[in-house]
Amino acid sequence: MIFSAEEQFALQLDSEDPLRHFRQKFHLPLGKDDRPLIYFAGNSLGLMPKAARAIVEEELDNWAKLGVDAHHATGTPWYTYHEALREPTARLVGANSLEVIYMNSLTVNLHLMMATFYRPTKSRFKILMEEPAFPSDTYAIKTQIVHHGLDPKDALILARPRKNEFIIRTEDIVDLIQKHADQLAVVVLAGVNFFTGQLFDVERITAAAQAYGVVVGFDLAHAIGNVPLSLHDWNVDFAVWCSYKYLNAGPGAVAGAFVHQRHATNRKLPRLAGWFGNDPNTRFRLHLEPEFVPVSSADGWQISNPPIFAMAPLRASLAIFDDAGGMEAGARNRRCEMRFSRTQRHPRRPYLTLQYVSRSLAFCEDSGSASIVAQSITTASLRILALQGDCERMQLGGHQSARDCRIFLHEFSRCVFIGRLKNRNAKRLVA
Amino acid sequence: MIFSAEEQFALQLDSEDPLRHFRQKFHLPLGKDDRPLIYFAGNSLGLMPKAARAIVEEELDNWAKLGVDAHHATGTPWYTYHEALREPTARLVGANSLEVIYMNSLTVNLHLMMATFYRPTKSRFKILMEEPAFPSDTYAIKTQIVHHGLDPKDALILARPRKNEFIIRTEDIVDLIQKHADQLAVVVLAGVNFFTGQLFDVERITAAAQAYGVVVGFDLAHAIGNVPLSLHDWNVDFAVWCSYKYLNAGPGAVAGAFVHQRHATNRKLPRLAGWFGNDPNTRFRLHLEPEFVPVSSADGWQISNPPIFAMAPLRASLAIFDDAGGMEAGARNRRCEMRFSRTQRHPRRPYLTLQYVSRSLAFCEDSGSASIVAQSITTASLRILALQGDCERMQLGGHQSARDCRIFLHEFSRCVFIGRLKNRNAKRLVA
Repeated sequence: MIFSAEEQFALQLDSEDPLRHFRQKFHLPLGKDDRPLIYFAGNSLGLMPKAARAIVEEELDNWAKLGVDAHHATGTPWYTYHEALREPTARLVGANSLEVIYMNSLTVNLHLMMATFYRPTKSRFKILMEEPAFPSDTYAIKTQIVHHGLDPKDALILARPRKNEFIIRTEDIVDLIQKHADQLAVVVLAGVNFFTGQLFDVERITAAAQAYGVVVGFDLAHAIGNVPLSLHDWNVDFAVWCSYKYLNAGPGAVAGAFVHQRHATNRKLPRLAGWFGNDPNTRFRLHLEPEFVPVSSADGWQISNPPIFAMAPLRASLAIFDDAGGMEAGARNRRCEMRFSRTQRHPRRPYLTLQYVSRSLAFCEDSGSASIVAQSITTASLRILALQGDCERMQLGGHQSARDCRIFLHEFSRCVFIGRLKNRNAKRLVA
Repeated sequence: MIFSAEEQFALQLDSEDPLRHFRQKFHLPLGKDDRPLIYFAGNSLGLMPKAARAIVEEELDNWAKLGVDAHHATGTPWYTYHEALREPTARLVGANSLEVIYMNSLTVNLHLMMATFYRPTKSRFKILMEEPAFPSDTYAIKTQIVHHGLDPKDALILARPRKNEFIIRTEDIVDLIQKHADQLAVVVLAGVNFFTGQLFDVERITAAAQAYGVVVGFDLAHAIGNVPLSLHDWNVDFAVWCSYKYLNAGPGAVAGAFVHQRHATNRKLPRLAGWFGNDPNTRFRLHLEPEFVPVSSADGWQISNPPIFAMAPLRASLAIFDDAGGMEAGARNRRCEMRFSRTQRHPRRPYLTLQYVSRSLAFCEDSGSASIVAQSITTASLRILALQGDCERMQLGGHQSARDCRIFLHEFSRCVFIGRLKNRNAKRLVA
């Protein structure tokens, strides 16, 4: 297909899009003209599924009418609320149902996973991350290292793009793994980098590290609900994610974790425990059960009871993913394309032509190209960006990446001509 | 005052109660006769403040209408949502405003506090707890010990009641502290024990431990919103709590933590970090700020962004506490009294006469007596209890204690004749 910069072409793509009606399932903020904004901030906060309100109100009603009995008496009992999210999430990340759990926040879950999987010894104590990583991951990993009495200067290895390149070559990651193989304990990477939009080759990196007995975990904050994942088959050891971005579960919503079956069923793995990780059959024996007996699944890493109001909207969102046929269906049904140019003179400034942003659920093949756009836009848009032309029609998050623009577009179905990116000192687009 | 078992006497106390109208501020589950139940499960899940619905719906509206911009654009901006809870909570626990933070769940917060304050050395590595403790605390502390390569058999000291006694004598706790002083690292106790209802002498225990350089932390799950607290003046090192019990914030609501000012402002303290614990002035420099710089307050232990829907109802509840004049006012305005007898032959069976349960906000002086009731009832009510007489009018949680019955009664204002406790094989009171 030959792409065109004409609006007519975009409208035609829209009309052919089998998922176009999914736009109606979300509340779109309105512009000054009362028309829905084209929302480019799903990387920061996903839009509200319209069905979320009824679910939240149902739980308010349960609280009001049933009090404590709502833990057991309703259609989706509070006591096992996480179970209602299990199957659709397993489908979304390519997991067995016993491998996924919703709990806490992303970075808390990263710490909990590290408590299990980062058990440094004198000989094997290093952690490999990418740079730039989202700072919460950086802070978590560095403080994990310090927590064990080590120094990040010795224990932290950073994989970086080569000079004048914008994404990290998989071969360079593999080289670093091999170079540090004897001392490497854990690899922690993003699935999709928050800044460059790079989609990492999860399967290849995982295999390369595991060949040396290294544990591999992923932060899927920008990957889940965005790109197809097959965590089980890829043999990933653990993964963590938030659900307020592409999973549209609301601000600060409950986060998720994946623990591969071979670990999830291993009750002997060390962990930082809480009572909801204990076998439900003995959980309410309370102090009569002073020995922690973990559930033989990812549930065994649960700490406390499910946060109902931070989980309820996720039920609405996951149902939409199922309705749409999941990530694989999205990848099949949709095309994405992005073209751009960049002034060589100001490589980190957003003088870009971002000709097309597709609404695809899928990831592009051209991640190298996409990442250049993302890198530049993100650098500029530590403040809000303005886009020439349709700027009144857009809403951008505080740390936008073009990769993100492209990939959260299941939230609206409109193939838009973006226009030419003009300057970095932008006015705020939504008052 | 001489208490009487007549209903007339109870109604008279009600009519004189200056806080009686506060019952109207909560949704009370209805019985089969459509009259409000007398809710005795605030120890498990606090009732829903009527004002919570509007606040939750306001946040749903913000999400729908503003999307990501709600982080900065509303009356209670999401980005700093925790700040709206700070002052009323500081009043409730007797803290400076920089000493309190809402985040995560109770047991996650306990782990985070232990990551900072439990830094075992070869000589100083022991932890003192009470027995029975809530199992989540037990699991947390035991796995903390194992996490550091130690064995709970060597490192965990348990303070227990003496034989044929039901609460732990403060002098025995102090003796244990002195006995293990050289090796003791941390004391972790409940403020009010979940099982016996014992109110610990926080101030005296804290002083006794700190005299030997021991850190002292409290789990306030059953104390906050229940008894007056002066954490700052008592010089407590840290405390954690959930807010779905007496704070009425909803199922699995956001939990809290207290870090004493002398620690909270110490940026050099080790901790497991996340980006929301970083100084807000540089937080959104993201990867350009690879070194974690904690906020110089309890906020510095934050990990992730605030979970808005797990926090919103707490705004409604904290406003009620302020309306009522706080815990101290409650203690002044209310009386509590409990009388009981117990068959000596079946000391652990609930053949009890629980003559009065007061609606007091305050704690009783007679905790020794109260705890006997609590112990017996709790043992029996690992299943739901029935109470003779008014049983249709009551709703009990799964692990009820009489102490709890007494102390959550700010949620209803009715001085009730309970009747005689009949047997442990009870029908469920609310269908």
